[in-house]
Amino acid sequence: MMMTTRKTTVSIVAKRTTNPIRDVVDRMTVQPNPDKKLIPLSIGDPTTFGNLNTPTVFMDALCKAARDPSTHGYQNSVGTPAARRAVAKHYSTPTAPLTENDVIMASGCSGALELAFKALVDEGDNVLAPCPGFALYRTIVEGIGGTCKTYPLIPELDWQADLQKMKAMADSRTKAIVVNNPSNPCGSVYSKEHLIDILKVAQELGIPVIADEIYRGLTFSGAVFHAMADLTADVPVISVGGIAKEYLVPGFRVGWILINDRHNLFANLRGALVSLSQVILGPNSLVLSALPSIMDPEPASAEDLALIAFRKHTVSTLEKNALFVTDRLSGIEGLQVIVPQGAMYVMVGINPSAGFDFKNDMDFCERLLSEESVFCLPGTCFDIPNYFRVVFCAPDEILEEACDRLKAFCARHRAGTAVASN
Amino acid sequence: MMMTTRKTTVSIVAKRTTNPIRDVVDRMTVQPNPDKKLIPLSIGDPTTFGNLNTPTVFMDALCKAARDPSTHGYQNSVGTPAARRAVAKHYSTPTAPLTENDVIMASGCSGALELAFKALVDEGDNVLAPCPGFALYRTIVEGIGGTCKTYPLIPELDWQADLQKMKAMADSRTKAIVVNNPSNPCGSVYSKEHLIDILKVAQELGIPVIADEIYRGLTFSGAVFHAMADLTADVPVISVGGIAKEYLVPGFRVGWILINDRHNLFANLRGALVSLSQVILGPNSLVLSALPSIMDPEPASAEDLALIAFRKHTVSTLEKNALFVTDRLSGIEGLQVIVPQGAMYVMVGINPSAGFDFKNDMDFCERLLSEESVFCLPGTCFDIPNYFRVVFCAPDEILEEACDRLKAFCARHRAGTAVASN
Repeated sequence: MMMTTRKTTVSIVAKRTTNPIRDVVDRMTVQPNPDKKLIPLSIGDPTTFGNLNTPTVFMDALCKAARDPSTHGYQNSVGTPAARRAVAKHYSTPTAPLTENDVIMASGCSGALELAFKALVDEGDNVLAPCPGFALYRTIVEGIGGTCKTYPLIPELDWQADLQKMKAMADSRTKAIVVNNPSNPCGSVYSKEHLIDILKVAQELGIPVIADEIYRGLTFSGAVFHAMADLTADVPVISVGGIAKEYLVPGFRVGWILINDRHNLFANLRGALVSLSQVILGPNSLVLSALPSIMDPEPASAEDLALIAFRKHTVSTLEKNALFVTDRLSGIEGLQVIVPQGAMYVMVGINPSAGFDFKNDMDFCERLLSEESVFCLPGTCFDIPNYFRVVFCAPDEILEEACDRLKAFCARHRAGTAVASN
Repeated sequence: MMMTTRKTTVSIVAKRTTNPIRDVVDRMTVQPNPDKKLIPLSIGDPTTFGNLNTPTVFMDALCKAARDPSTHGYQNSVGTPAARRAVAKHYSTPTAPLTENDVIMASGCSGALELAFKALVDEGDNVLAPCPGFALYRTIVEGIGGTCKTYPLIPELDWQADLQKMKAMADSRTKAIVVNNPSNPCGSVYSKEHLIDILKVAQELGIPVIADEIYRGLTFSGAVFHAMADLTADVPVISVGGIAKEYLVPGFRVGWILINDRHNLFANLRGALVSLSQVILGPNSLVLSALPSIMDPEPASAEDLALIAFRKHTVSTLEKNALFVTDRLSGIEGLQVIVPQGAMYVMVGINPSAGFDFKNDMDFCERLLSEESVFCLPGTCFDIPNYFRVVFCAPDEILEEACDRLKAFCARHRAGTAVASN
């Protein structure tokens, strides 16, 4: 007897939980050009090409944990005391001190964002988030039944936030301002002054800041990273971060929330985060166990020196790549590059008056993939049309090849140049 | 200037997300007896005492993954193809075949339960779950804004479900029946006939079964585990499981959902689970990479034989412990033991007419801890008073010591025996 299932529909939450990047990418049905090797510059994963590897000291600590059954059991859902202490010590400053109780370990920085939004946002509430911005803010907030109102970042001002618009869109249901610094997808790093201006808005509105600082360790020379929490004693700052980008292990799924609330305005926030973390019981115990090896090595030990060299190498590689890509793409007629100061991304504008035969940024990226086998994400994935995002983690020769292909592609698709360049 | 934060309250979801075990345990403010070594028989963590360790083949595979940067990057949020294939192959049967597309990897079995409930339950909906039962069902469902209606398990019938009551409590908002077999906290293993009877109820109601089968690999001789999905071609069965218990690694946070929906009644369930999994991007990549080493070894290879021996050793150790504890506790006046057939738990009834001077099971467990330093969870944690749960993973000598202390404790607290036994 075949049953008739009464309940064949999934929940509202499931229906409204969508990942804009996946939606857009899934709509891109084209295939790479089979005659050209695929160059994926789409996903923010520094491990894609094998040129950037996590330090040996971390691998050693992970192996040790794998062979030590005492690290295989349940841990506290907000993390082991040792891991929380190591993170607190690593990020503590005299102006924004942290103790282990201010650290909530989570299943990646995405898991940290989910905990933070879940703790703050009710159905009908909203948060202010950057545009262009990381798609997950919207995914999570809309999944909860809230709204993600986006404040514009101004490309002409190195992607500074439009504070007037930010302020104007806040209402009585606004629960937080999300600030992503350094920025995905822009690669921008904000000045101290700009961050203080944002904090003033938060203070006026009487709401906390959720500071997504996952790229804090990846800032290039000339720019200085300032932690949001270091710039205010008054506004509660919920910083999220993780090891994914700086230690080149996005698959490990270990991140954290740092609670900076010196006046204890959010007295019940810690309890809420602890309760919410008890549902899935926190991140992987092997990584938690190995975390102090990279976050809190013996000062001036061989491991410490190796880690300093590792970080320097990662940042200098990314900076070199950023300069190379910026330089090469700036030389392409019709593209406009906004020089990145950190992270692993650069946004490239497609000049609408350059005579390109593309319908839009989706069309640009689809044809770039199908003709040149270079895969970049269209700006639409980040809520900003007429741009595309380039991830610049690849080795020199691959970035060079990608830029060459982009150049030929753009030349071929500009009005009047199509025949000449073919 | 000190800011006045407008929004100092956490979200409704955060407020209603509570873990009953934590609530109960946090209310137990007593300390262990400092003169007696603590024996924790409270948490279902087989690694607590160091006598049960994950197999070497798994440790080796984890180490290899730790040193292989190609496993450190982002993975598909529902798991790597290799891990999904290994799990599908491991659990596939001729009557309930599985492909990799039927497997959704998650952040532990708890993460799998969260995905499943989130995909099915809207605010105002309810699910039917066992009483006594695993507290997390309620935590998740009530966090979502649903209700967890509990159907009684009958101790006199080896904790079989009361099907009449199960059926009677269903209404138009009932979205699923949760069946936990083998059971936490009961250690019961259901017969094929009983499982078929439950499926008939689901079929009548037209709703799917969520089968929590995390303890499926831990069934003692005399009892046979039947996978729910194997017993129906009609009722959609969403099985959840993981490596935590069978492979002795609860800290690794890797579990899965197996979708058994042969008539595709829940056509949109897969899509919903995929979308929901994209929020935190799945479990740890090292464990995913190492998973085929334990789930799908080369048949009859040295690794395969070692794994067979490992599983046999784990189950026989637990079975031996179960027999020992059952035998010893059955001999204590005033306690009633319901013999477990699997998992790592036994529920022990506190006979209310035995003349004990305890107010209730909370009081029993508090005084057991403060006087004898033996820590068991009160039945109240599982929604059933007048019981306590014993985890029987500890080594022989510790279980023996715990039983000795329990015996003395019970004797001391029975009316008329207090003076004599002191």
